[in-house]
Amino acid sequence: MADMQHRIGEITLTAVGPDRRPLTDRVITVAQQRHDFAFGNIGFDFVGAAGVFGGASSGRRDELAEAWLGLFNTATLPFYWGDYERERGKPDEARLKAAAKWFAAQGVTVKGHPLLWHTVQPDWLLGLELDEVERLIRERIRDLVTGFAGTIDLWDAINEAVIMPVFANGDNAITPLAWDRGRIEMVRMAFEEAREANPAATLVLNDFDLSSAYECLIEGVLEAGIQIDAIGLQTHMHQGYRGEEYMQKMLDRFARYGLPLHMTETTLLSGHLMPAEITDLNDYQIPSWPSTPEGEERQASEMVRHYRSLVGHPAVQSINYWGLTDDGAWLGAPVGFLRADGSRKPSYAALSNLIKGEWWLPPTEMRTGSAGTVTVLGFFGDYVADGEPFTVRRGQTEATVTLPA
Amino acid sequence: MADMQHRIGEITLTAVGPDRRPLTDRVITVAQQRHDFAFGNIGFDFVGAAGVFGGASSGRRDELAEAWLGLFNTATLPFYWGDYERERGKPDEARLKAAAKWFAAQGVTVKGHPLLWHTVQPDWLLGLELDEVERLIRERIRDLVTGFAGTIDLWDAINEAVIMPVFANGDNAITPLAWDRGRIEMVRMAFEEAREANPAATLVLNDFDLSSAYECLIEGVLEAGIQIDAIGLQTHMHQGYRGEEYMQKMLDRFARYGLPLHMTETTLLSGHLMPAEITDLNDYQIPSWPSTPEGEERQASEMVRHYRSLVGHPAVQSINYWGLTDDGAWLGAPVGFLRADGSRKPSYAALSNLIKGEWWLPPTEMRTGSAGTVTVLGFFGDYVADGEPFTVRRGQTEATVTLPA
Repeated sequence: MADMQHRIGEITLTAVGPDRRPLTDRVITVAQQRHDFAFGNIGFDFVGAAGVFGGASSGRRDELAEAWLGLFNTATLPFYWGDYERERGKPDEARLKAAAKWFAAQGVTVKGHPLLWHTVQPDWLLGLELDEVERLIRERIRDLVTGFAGTIDLWDAINEAVIMPVFANGDNAITPLAWDRGRIEMVRMAFEEAREANPAATLVLNDFDLSSAYECLIEGVLEAGIQIDAIGLQTHMHQGYRGEEYMQKMLDRFARYGLPLHMTETTLLSGHLMPAEITDLNDYQIPSWPSTPEGEERQASEMVRHYRSLVGHPAVQSINYWGLTDDGAWLGAPVGFLRADGSRKPSYAALSNLIKGEWWLPPTEMRTGSAGTVTVLGFFGDYVADGEPFTVRRGQTEATVTLPA
Repeated sequence: MADMQHRIGEITLTAVGPDRRPLTDRVITVAQQRHDFAFGNIGFDFVGAAGVFGGASSGRRDELAEAWLGLFNTATLPFYWGDYERERGKPDEARLKAAAKWFAAQGVTVKGHPLLWHTVQPDWLLGLELDEVERLIRERIRDLVTGFAGTIDLWDAINEAVIMPVFANGDNAITPLAWDRGRIEMVRMAFEEAREANPAATLVLNDFDLSSAYECLIEGVLEAGIQIDAIGLQTHMHQGYRGEEYMQKMLDRFARYGLPLHMTETTLLSGHLMPAEITDLNDYQIPSWPSTPEGEERQASEMVRHYRSLVGHPAVQSINYWGLTDDGAWLGAPVGFLRADGSRKPSYAALSNLIKGEWWLPPTEMRTGSAGTVTVLGFFGDYVADGEPFTVRRGQTEATVTLPA
């Protein structure tokens, strides 16, 4: 098992009465409420016309929400330009705002994805002059980041900049701009505009290219003095789990820039794997991609190995899985924790056993000593003692809760 | 055929007598002497202990030199640290200087390769502190560039920086430094030190990685304000000729940075191809790699296609082939224009038919008109009229030669 000491704090919790005097020899119930570590998933299913729910039938609303909230604390919402503003000047703001606010109301951190990308483009952008495309990009970023500030303060500022200028798998208006301006200018454009619109936002550089190319881009971006808050690393594993050793080496390469690593998009399949020779995953189109019993066992086992190795690396700050249910999953792949019919795969319980099991402090009775204290050892996060909140954070050694006498 | 108009000038040449008056109705012989375009090859065989010749037996000196000088005008000489300074403080300066001066005396431009690279390292560098390694790198660069200035004013300043920090195919002292400092700092180190040592030098960033990674590195280096004079692109094609379309697209990607492109290392085989699954060419070790009749025909045909497509691209400023003879060729591969026994392969005549044929103005009789002029149309370069020198350069429209009355 990967060493988790970098995720765990030990504090002395003092229980005091309303008179501020220690409550000695008192049985209190301590329980974790939330992980500081971002265990995320997409919340695309929760963007609906009428309310917060989307693709899934209304009869499944509650079970989907229950499953989602049972495991995750960070939701990625879709802001693909071509979907979000299909008709120029008419952004899909109301639905997205409702979904974002619903998540936020459940205590979930909401993330927007992505501000700038060359894929899923609105048709009306094609054929415009480069300067006009840039102006519209900047306007979109400003509008989104300002409009959602307070609800969404975490964005993939730019997506897949490595391939952006040379992308050849679909006409779009961003690639010619990136070809002309260069990658660093595109990154600067996204980050500067978003930063100005919301100085409190966490802005992520996100890519699927984990080769030296991305390292080179990051080095150039840092050299250019562009402030990026986290390095986003996609790991869609439709062609198979890459294993702990690969992940460790890859994370070490990106960790050396001293920035938090966000595993922005990760998936593991519970069905057959995509052939290794496919380079753009979008090119693999099949009528049906079933989840299988053997595949589900494999997925559950790999899920545990994958999360263990990522959480075990000190530089990783978040893991965002890319799909809750197979219903409507990207590429039709069986990547979910739930089957298309809503039933739970073994991976759900497997991940729950980590996030809400091995790495979680369930309600636990403790007896205070003569100084009114107990020792709480647990993953960094939010806790309660008899319902009163306290935290366990890095570097923290003490906390106090006030309880009824 | 690729359009060569960007390589060709048309000038009005006036022949005047000693009295400066035009020589009318006079037959003069005009002939090209040298291409401005750098048609290069390595000159490794000409670095010898006793004189300028190396690996080849002394009986072949003259035929090797004749073959080399018959086609090429730019020689790359080896300055691999591990060979050049096998024993610390005792550089192989005398032999290299003799070879460089011999080439220069033949009118050949001499290039040094490479100032900084992670491969072919001296053993004594291993285990030193990073700061000490950096100090020694800077010292070496300064010493070489200063010491050879005037004879060598063209250097591969840094070689293969893309893979440098993550190179895993051999222990060396440069990779740990590059891992710590980053690629851009390594590039800066090499370029700044070399530039300061010889401000007149042309300094090349050179890489075999022609993917987006190299683009990203270049963008970062330019963003960092490091002045690079040319982008070096290796194209060792031991696994097969990549074709005109690949080359055109690749060149377009790198041409967009507005810098001259140097095809620093190119090879085409006249024997069987290396299997495609080999990623580091150095890993392919076989006892014998024969040149074959079919392979030689293929090589000759591909050589013509390759040179035509490269010279046809306006951004390309030089092509440096990587081997004259199969005798002692890199990896033992049959890449030469000469077989190991010194006889010429069809590729020699094929390339000669371009460089000294189709793209060359042989001695040609012309008759001056009433103004004492003739029109000279030819590839940019150095020319003579009845032995008197003149040039044809980009943007030039006129030249004058003074001839006996």
